[in-house]
Amino acid sequence: MSQVYDRVALIGLGLIASSMFWAMKRAGLAGEVTGYARSAETRETARQIGLCDRVCDSAVEAVEGADLIVLCVPVGAMGAVAQEISAALKPGATVTDVGSVKRHVIQSVAPHIPEGVHFVPAHPLAGTEHSGPESGFAELYDNRWCLLVPAEGSDRDAVENLRALWEGMGANVEEMDADHHDLVLAVTSHAPHLIAYTMVGVADDLSRVTDSEVIKYSAAGFRDFTRIAASDPTMWRDVFLTNKDATLEILGRFTEELFALQRAIRTGDGEQLFDYFTRTRAIRRGIIEAGQDTDAPDFGRGKAAQ
Amino acid sequence: MSQVYDRVALIGLGLIASSMFWAMKRAGLAGEVTGYARSAETRETARQIGLCDRVCDSAVEAVEGADLIVLCVPVGAMGAVAQEISAALKPGATVTDVGSVKRHVIQSVAPHIPEGVHFVPAHPLAGTEHSGPESGFAELYDNRWCLLVPAEGSDRDAVENLRALWEGMGANVEEMDADHHDLVLAVTSHAPHLIAYTMVGVADDLSRVTDSEVIKYSAAGFRDFTRIAASDPTMWRDVFLTNKDATLEILGRFTEELFALQRAIRTGDGEQLFDYFTRTRAIRRGIIEAGQDTDAPDFGRGKAAQ
Repeated sequence: MSQVYDRVALIGLGLIASSMFWAMKRAGLAGEVTGYARSAETRETARQIGLCDRVCDSAVEAVEGADLIVLCVPVGAMGAVAQEISAALKPGATVTDVGSVKRHVIQSVAPHIPEGVHFVPAHPLAGTEHSGPESGFAELYDNRWCLLVPAEGSDRDAVENLRALWEGMGANVEEMDADHHDLVLAVTSHAPHLIAYTMVGVADDLSRVTDSEVIKYSAAGFRDFTRIAASDPTMWRDVFLTNKDATLEILGRFTEELFALQRAIRTGDGEQLFDYFTRTRAIRRGIIEAGQDTDAPDFGRGKAAQ
Repeated sequence: MSQVYDRVALIGLGLIASSMFWAMKRAGLAGEVTGYARSAETRETARQIGLCDRVCDSAVEAVEGADLIVLCVPVGAMGAVAQEISAALKPGATVTDVGSVKRHVIQSVAPHIPEGVHFVPAHPLAGTEHSGPESGFAELYDNRWCLLVPAEGSDRDAVENLRALWEGMGANVEEMDADHHDLVLAVTSHAPHLIAYTMVGVADDLSRVTDSEVIKYSAAGFRDFTRIAASDPTMWRDVFLTNKDATLEILGRFTEELFALQRAIRTGDGEQLFDYFTRTRAIRRGIIEAGQDTDAPDFGRGKAAQ
C-alpha cells in the first residue's frame, strides 16, 4: 500500500479516529498524522499511548498544512468545529467527516468550507460499544463498508483519494446520496439502536425482576440488545436529533407492525406469528451470504466468554 | 465426571437435544442415550451423524427403561408427547423438559405424569439461531445457566440428579418458581425476540430501501437483530402463545417507553435522550462483569467475519 496523503489531521480522538490512525499506520497511508481533542485529558491519553504522530492543543494547529482533515466529533458538534478551522485550511485540502448522519452534517459543515477546499462527507459503518481514544484498533474497518456522500460537482480526485484511503484501511467503499444514506441508516442502525436502548431501559425499570437477575439470566436476545445500548450516549443523542424525520418514520412503521404482532399473540393467531418469523429468517441468511457476519454456532464469541 | 443416569431418552432431536447428547458424551454422564424425532428425515439424519446411541422409531420405544426422559419438542407439543409416552414410563424415572416457558409446560405435562415418576421442568438458557439435529455441539451449555423449576414437593434426589447432569454438561444451575421464570424470560428473551422479529420485518417491507441494501449496509444494530430474528419459527410461535401474559405486559411497557423517546426526538429534547442512553450503558457493564458475554472490541467475531 502506498501513501495517499502527506498530512492527515484527525479532529476528535475517539473510537473512530483512533482506529483510523492505527489502520493508516498499518498500511502506510499517511505521512504525518496530527490529532486534536477538545478534552485535555483525551489529548494526554493520546500522547501516552502514541495515538497520532503529533497531538496539538488546538484544532487550528492540527489542521495547518494538512491535506486531509477528518472531523471525528459527534454530529452535533461538526458545524462548530468546521467554523473554527475554516480559516486555517490549506487550499486544495480535503475535509471529510465520519458522522452517522449525512444531510445534517452537510448543512452544518458545507457553509464553512472555503473556496478551493474540497468537502467529501463519509460514513464508515463500523463501531463497537466502546468509546474513547484507547478503544481504537487497526482492524475495525476490515471488510466493513464506508459510504462516501460527495456533493454534486465534487472534485473527483478528492473523492478518489478518499476512497483509496478507506480501501487502504480495509473498508469496502460505495457512494450514495445524502438523503438515501440517512434513510438506509435509519433502518439498519438508528431505529434498531433506539429500540435496543428502550428495551434495556424497560428491563431496568421492572421492579419485580432485579437488575442482577436481568444480567445473570440475560439470554441471547437481551444480551445483544445491551451490546447495542452500550454505545456512546453523546453520539447517539446527536444521531436521533439530526436524523429525526427518517428515524421517526421507521419507528412509526415499527410500532404499527409490533401492534399487529401483539394482537396476534393476544388472539392466539399462531399462523400469523409463524409466517412472520419464517420470513425474517431469510434476511439473516442474506447477511451471512453477504459476508457481514459470522455463521459460527456460538456467534464466534464462545471462547472469550468462558 | 461420573455417570449420572444409566439410560437417557431424548424426545425431539433439534439443537438443544443434539447439544445435550454431545455434552453428555463429552463428560460420560449417561450410559445409553436413545433418541426419537417425529420426522423420519430427522431420525435418518441422526443415525447418519451418530446422534444418539440408538435412534428409535417411536417415542414409546425410546423411553422404555429410561431413567431420564428429556422432552425437547416445541412448547406447544409437550402435552401431546407426555400423553403419548405416559404409560411407557419406568417407575422411579424422571421426566424433564427444556422449554422456554414453564407455567404452560407444567400445566400441559404434569397431568400425564404417572404416580411414582418424577417431573422436574428445566430450561437451559442457551441457543443459537440454528436448528435441527446437525446444529448441536458439546460446548453449547458451557458457562450458561440452566434453570430448574421443580414443583412443590418434588423428589429432592430427582432434582439433585438433574442438577448434576446439567452441571456435568457445563452449565450453572439455579432453581426458580415457574411464574417468576416466565416473567424473567419475558424480559430477557421473549420480548426482545419479538422486537427483533418486528424490526427485521419492517426493513423487509420498506420499498424505498432494497433488501440487498439492508443486508449490505447492515451495521451493528440491525445485524444483531437479524441474528435474533433467525431463530426457529415454530419454537418462538409457541413461546409467545404460551407465555402470553408476561410477554404482553413487557411489550406494553416497552411501547410506552418507546413513545416517550420518540416524543423526545420529535421535540428535540437532547437531555432526556442523553440521560436515558447513559443509564442503559451501566447494564451492559454488569453483563460483562457477570461473565455472560465477551468484552472483545469486535464482539469476538472479527476473525470469522473476514
